[in-house]
Amino acid sequence: MSTITTIGFDADDTLWQNEQFFRQTEKHFATLLAEHAGGHDIEARLLEAERRNLAHYGFGIKGFTLSMIETALELSGGKVPPNVIREILDVGREMLSHPVETLPHVRETLEELAGAYRLVLITKGDLFDQERKLAQSGLGELFDAVEIVSDKTAATYQRIFTCHGDGPGRSMMVGNSLKSDVVPAIQAGGWGVYVPHDLTWVLEHADEPTAAPRFRRLEHLGELSALIERLGREG
Amino acid sequence: MSTITTIGFDADDTLWQNEQFFRQTEKHFATLLAEHAGGHDIEARLLEAERRNLAHYGFGIKGFTLSMIETALELSGGKVPPNVIREILDVGREMLSHPVETLPHVRETLEELAGAYRLVLITKGDLFDQERKLAQSGLGELFDAVEIVSDKTAATYQRIFTCHGDGPGRSMMVGNSLKSDVVPAIQAGGWGVYVPHDLTWVLEHADEPTAAPRFRRLEHLGELSALIERLGREG
Repeated sequence: MSTITTIGFDADDTLWQNEQFFRQTEKHFATLLAEHAGGHDIEARLLEAERRNLAHYGFGIKGFTLSMIETALELSGGKVPPNVIREILDVGREMLSHPVETLPHVRETLEELAGAYRLVLITKGDLFDQERKLAQSGLGELFDAVEIVSDKTAATYQRIFTCHGDGPGRSMMVGNSLKSDVVPAIQAGGWGVYVPHDLTWVLEHADEPTAAPRFRRLEHLGELSALIERLGREG
Repeated sequence: MSTITTIGFDADDTLWQNEQFFRQTEKHFATLLAEHAGGHDIEARLLEAERRNLAHYGFGIKGFTLSMIETALELSGGKVPPNVIREILDVGREMLSHPVETLPHVRETLEELAGAYRLVLITKGDLFDQERKLAQSGLGELFDAVEIVSDKTAATYQRIFTCHGDGPGRSMMVGNSLKSDVVPAIQAGGWGVYVPHDLTWVLEHADEPTAAPRFRRLEHLGELSALIERLGREG
């Protein structure tokens, strides 16, 4: 029997806006360095720094800020004016205090499902920043558990759905990242529900696992309750 | 009945060296800025920045690196040479990959207690960095649970000892920070065992709660098993 009892939700760009703040900051960053390189090159070099630093910094805004500073030094051949560094620190700190903007259908959907299912928030990034956003979102009460993790692999979902639910086989993960939310949850034996967001970081891209029987794609979170009901009838 | 069933351990400077890397880096930082200020002033300004940024960055090396960069800009009146910024980035990254140096008595004590008690690692700081250190320490297998938290308050211990144990009343927290490990665990109703370390960050200082019946102080972790045995006989 495979009735779903536990639903995991990604947070950034699934429950609330996130990537848009990175994009805005990247644009701002490009204007700061405009005299040293073209916009596209700046973007590419920053992404390269982020990718390289992932093993040191993990995910999150503080690491992103450090990568911006490093890229500014590189692109300017070590001649970046200190006031640009100052401004990068400021925009990084602004990102860390941007107001939380919940996405459409989120609250209603969580309220519908809470009680009937165990809801678990599963997110990566800075522990401190994610806790702040959860508190500000006012959604914390709707979750039975919150797991802030450094990476999302099949083993991560295996552990979390075993600890907070009845194992991955009776669990579903919902999120906007095929690479971090959907594919590894399916690999662990669970359902993986892809809810695309217009903006998704290039390092989170992966192919849709269309052949997987436990893969589903929704247009928005408002369709989730109906999907779960349908799967329950079929199950 | 108040038999202890669960023991929480702090990580940094309780299980392994940590503060010494910050001190070394602070010294290095002071030499980088030697032409702009005296050593003592540099130290004071850096601490001021760290304190101010705690609400934005939380604890950990990435936030510390950003605070060093900010302090360098401040102390130099915005004239810091870019190669100094470059060097600060490098020392920050070095801190994030320093080898883990387990403190004396740690492994033997954990091995003695594992099995007989539920052992929980409770640490704050960067999620990513703490996971790295735990993996490198080789101590992970000895713990029943690992909780990396953004702050350590009485509520934190209430939650963790309820989730992973039989409540704070039957739990003990062991660590080198009176402020984060010992006092809030006692406030939650548990035992608080202080194992001082030569180096403890000034923001972690607090008075010893000598009047609290559940406060104990040990010279080193090698004395822990005997203490627990003694409390068991008295209990």
